[in-house]
Amino acid sequence: MPKVEFQPVGVTIDVPPGTDLLTAARRAGVAVDSPCGGKGTCGQCLVRVASGQMNFVGGRGLLSEALLAEGYVLACQATVRDEPLTIEIPQQVGYEGGKFADGDETFLVRHELLPREWQYDPLAVKWRLTVSAPQPEDGLGDLDRLTRAIQQEWGPMRVLYSLAVIHTVANTLRAADGVVTVTLIRDGEQLHAIRLESGDTTMRHFGLAADVGTTTVAVQLIDLVRGRVLATRSEYNGQIPCGLDVISRINYAARGDGLAELRCGVLETLNRLIAQLAAAHGVAAHEISNAVISGNTTMMHLMLGLNPEHIRLAPYTPTLLEAPYFSAAEVGLEINPDSWVYLSPCVGSYVGGDITAGLLCTDLAAGREDISLFIDIGTNGEIVLGNNEFLLACACSAGPAFEGGGIDCGMRAALGAIEKVDVDPATGAPRCYTIGNTRPRGICGSGMIDLLANLLLGGWIDSAGKFDRQRPCPAIRVEGKKAWYVLAEASVSATDKDLVIGEQDIENIVRAKAAIYSACALMMEQIGMEFSDLAAVYIAGGFGRFLDLAKATVIGLVPDIDPEKFQYIGNSSLMGSYMVAVSQDYRQRQYELARRMTYFDLSNAPGYMDHYTAALFLPHTDEASFPSVVAAMQADREGAR
Amino acid sequence: MPKVEFQPVGVTIDVPPGTDLLTAARRAGVAVDSPCGGKGTCGQCLVRVASGQMNFVGGRGLLSEALLAEGYVLACQATVRDEPLTIEIPQQVGYEGGKFADGDETFLVRHELLPREWQYDPLAVKWRLTVSAPQPEDGLGDLDRLTRAIQQEWGPMRVLYSLAVIHTVANTLRAADGVVTVTLIRDGEQLHAIRLESGDTTMRHFGLAADVGTTTVAVQLIDLVRGRVLATRSEYNGQIPCGLDVISRINYAARGDGLAELRCGVLETLNRLIAQLAAAHGVAAHEISNAVISGNTTMMHLMLGLNPEHIRLAPYTPTLLEAPYFSAAEVGLEINPDSWVYLSPCVGSYVGGDITAGLLCTDLAAGREDISLFIDIGTNGEIVLGNNEFLLACACSAGPAFEGGGIDCGMRAALGAIEKVDVDPATGAPRCYTIGNTRPRGICGSGMIDLLANLLLGGWIDSAGKFDRQRPCPAIRVEGKKAWYVLAEASVSATDKDLVIGEQDIENIVRAKAAIYSACALMMEQIGMEFSDLAAVYIAGGFGRFLDLAKATVIGLVPDIDPEKFQYIGNSSLMGSYMVAVSQDYRQRQYELARRMTYFDLSNAPGYMDHYTAALFLPHTDEASFPSVVAAMQADREGAR
Repeated sequence: MPKVEFQPVGVTIDVPPGTDLLTAARRAGVAVDSPCGGKGTCGQCLVRVASGQMNFVGGRGLLSEALLAEGYVLACQATVRDEPLTIEIPQQVGYEGGKFADGDETFLVRHELLPREWQYDPLAVKWRLTVSAPQPEDGLGDLDRLTRAIQQEWGPMRVLYSLAVIHTVANTLRAADGVVTVTLIRDGEQLHAIRLESGDTTMRHFGLAADVGTTTVAVQLIDLVRGRVLATRSEYNGQIPCGLDVISRINYAARGDGLAELRCGVLETLNRLIAQLAAAHGVAAHEISNAVISGNTTMMHLMLGLNPEHIRLAPYTPTLLEAPYFSAAEVGLEINPDSWVYLSPCVGSYVGGDITAGLLCTDLAAGREDISLFIDIGTNGEIVLGNNEFLLACACSAGPAFEGGGIDCGMRAALGAIEKVDVDPATGAPRCYTIGNTRPRGICGSGMIDLLANLLLGGWIDSAGKFDRQRPCPAIRVEGKKAWYVLAEASVSATDKDLVIGEQDIENIVRAKAAIYSACALMMEQIGMEFSDLAAVYIAGGFGRFLDLAKATVIGLVPDIDPEKFQYIGNSSLMGSYMVAVSQDYRQRQYELARRMTYFDLSNAPGYMDHYTAALFLPHTDEASFPSVVAAMQADREGAR
Repeated sequence: MPKVEFQPVGVTIDVPPGTDLLTAARRAGVAVDSPCGGKGTCGQCLVRVASGQMNFVGGRGLLSEALLAEGYVLACQATVRDEPLTIEIPQQVGYEGGKFADGDETFLVRHELLPREWQYDPLAVKWRLTVSAPQPEDGLGDLDRLTRAIQQEWGPMRVLYSLAVIHTVANTLRAADGVVTVTLIRDGEQLHAIRLESGDTTMRHFGLAADVGTTTVAVQLIDLVRGRVLATRSEYNGQIPCGLDVISRINYAARGDGLAELRCGVLETLNRLIAQLAAAHGVAAHEISNAVISGNTTMMHLMLGLNPEHIRLAPYTPTLLEAPYFSAAEVGLEINPDSWVYLSPCVGSYVGGDITAGLLCTDLAAGREDISLFIDIGTNGEIVLGNNEFLLACACSAGPAFEGGGIDCGMRAALGAIEKVDVDPATGAPRCYTIGNTRPRGICGSGMIDLLANLLLGGWIDSAGKFDRQRPCPAIRVEGKKAWYVLAEASVSATDKDLVIGEQDIENIVRAKAAIYSACALMMEQIGMEFSDLAAVYIAGGFGRFLDLAKATVIGLVPDIDPEKFQYIGNSSLMGSYMVAVSQDYRQRQYELARRMTYFDLSNAPGYMDHYTAALFLPHTDEASFPSVVAAMQADREGAR
């Protein structure tokens, strides 16, 4: 089979002729974005052929002659011939390209809400033991002596072993004079021994936290000894080609092998991210002893291969809300196969574990009497309103716009994404800031919000999201009934194409923000409160490290109240998963949160469509509810004149 | 790939050209004996080619021209060409050919020792439930409602599910208006739900009992509702090509993939027998919810894939003696993958679960003060001496002679085996009785014992096992230094060869009986007792339904005491496994037996070699210890004169 070498990461893989480069890259564990799901339409899987020849499946139409001449191809549209190839992954989409490549976002969460060192207490613990040497005719086998040594430290608990662990016992007990390290899971009055190593390895102990979103999957590698996040990586969910939102995924699951395909899709994404994180930090997959995964109810069902049909059909009853622990082997997670996978508990068919994890990053339910709001902006928007006495949760379908889906040059918050756009008040010209200060590849959610807010404040778009066709602006292009805004010319963009936002894109963004705002407004109505009565508003979402909440107010995504009350907490589903991974106390808190939460079904609420329709303007049909935005718009426009 | 059809069973299989017929038959689940392990030397895998052409690997030398002309070939020596074939399996080795094909041996065990109906209490139980329909917004998923329904019947116990079972929940709960049958395993304060079916299936509930011997594997299918054995099947252990006794298997395990090969060998045998039993009784493999397996310590390690090396090396410490429950999936048993496999507890490296199971078929330890002896005659002979106060166990290597190994025309107790041979006192001519009254294919252990005893009583062999070369006898043939006894001429044998017993064969049988007798004698010496002081002697072994203990005394296999004290109890390891499979009370008894037993290491005992050497005569060097045998020999010989 021909060899394909990926540079600069230096990974080589054998693939059968006819394999497309996107598939080859995924098999090699090399990250290449493809939000369109390999249809050749998004142009984001651009790679360069350094040596060798390719075949083309869908034509080369999307790429300019200049790019083609330099050897660029779309990975999804080029297939391997029966000869070796060398492929260069452009820096910003390569192996190290995840937005969160080497950091964590714990700083976004208020310090006092994070687990402290004395609360570090992961589900799996490592314990050094000395096991006595075998004695002739004492009637004890190796396993008996190991169990006895564990019980000397832990008391007379039942110790359970899988056959895979028992396979290692004879040799491990004899390798270092009986000194062994056992990894144990405490399960009430039982201990599950999930790994046995010779010598003292207690300082190498790793766990995982993961957020499985409809659009984006993010994974953290955790050092369980020090309770620290070692690294985070994210990638589009491999299920995207099967549908953009949960309902289309549920429908896809009903076709032939659809459910199995969806399950594989997300597991491949998770396992690829795990393999990349582990390799980058010198950790072997089987050293990872615990995983906490949070996601919405549909994502959890699909990941487990459970029929999601009844989530969609009345009375909307999923197979499970609180999952038992599963072994990594049964889930299909490529870590220690005997390790336990904990899924954050879900509350209802449309309020999932991402929310019960996310709430841990707020003090919504922790001893506060005044009422706060938690908004998780994702493809499935989820909202919780409450205090220490009640927690009311709902969900709305916002669509994938803020994660880059359905937006011509949209992308997730990764290197090369425009995350901030200044718009010159006088000329309307853009000034883009990209993650990593590279040439722009597209625009992510925070960039879209910033752009729309600035265009609105400057009067370049109206409250319906339509461009001003009268006022001269070099960035606004009009062709017939169509108009669009050029963020970056092809000459400066990393994709060699103009990066543009059209009116259709704006409409998609407005629909997303309207779905979220109107759900919040309806929730407030339910409890007879005004937004201004809220003590705090927590905003979560995969916007990376940056989200300008003042601009989110301008477009009417979040209410127009005292800016001091807002806090952006990043990917709170991922952060909450981390907390649960390092602390059993937090797992218990999460469990209680899930039990306390009441699910409010928006689809049955009579006022929802009115609220939604009213929110389909920038900032809102009811300008009185956005007084500071209206004032700023007027001030800006007057300033520009 | 060419198709091979096996008749009269009517099974067709596709195999690659070059596959030998023995392998093809095994893959098709068609039983063909091959005690020589496929070396082309035993001649027992004889089949007839009804249509098609074959290639031959080892020549056709063993078969007569007459047989070849009729289309007979040795399955192990003939390989498939690239064309279809039809193969006839001779009746006696075909699909229905197991000795125990449709019966059980419970009648061999004293009635009062068997579990009574009120003791039927298998580990896995089936329970019919009605699960309430899903309610809108009651916050309960399908699994919650199922758990609640189980807890309503069983109390507030924790209910555990594997992901595989959870996969079936959504559809099963909705298939029959919430009526479901759950299969539960009780594990202290926990319940493991291992299967969920729609409707009421409580009357279909099956289990397995198995004896894994070094030479022979026997499996029983049990109806757990009625506590009845449905059928038993046995076959040679697929590990035989890797060595004939436990020590050579342990050595084989140390080579390259030896351990994996041994594990596969025995699992293939077990799974083939299970598949045949299940198919013959219309039971699906996943309807089998529980298995009890008994075998010696080495067999259990090899079946589990555990390194057996330290069983052979001082201080002889196995990985495990009392195994925890394993799931069928981790063991590799092809029944319900979530079902639990119970392994009978072992006592030491050389006294295994076959003995703790076997003792359940005796009253050795059950409230008896007088001392009894239990002898399990197998490739690994195991002996227990004791009463309600002590149990002393030892093991000796007898070799596979009594199961047909190392004997020219030896075979296990299956259809066509000579199980009894009368020898005409005047002429020395044999009269053979075969299992199933078919043409003879070979001789099994009980036949060998009968033959040797009759030859000795008639004076046709001397106490050293040598043939009388003076006295004219048409059945005894002498050629140079060699002499042999013709049991059946080629014209009447099913193999178209003379079936003969030579002096080398007799020597192998004498060694086997000497190993067992001398171990018994040494045990008696240890406690300072005579054989005549024993209250009872239980003899177990795979001799099928018949063993003439008077003849066993004649050859000195068992002591010469009051014949009333003997009881032949058949394959007690298998029978004890059955008892444990149907009754948790018996499982507890077995556990206590294992704990009470003391292992006595023969290999360290100073007198063993002397005892063994003295026993290498028929009946024994010390004629005084076999007074009735000596008297009978004299009487018979005088009668013959």
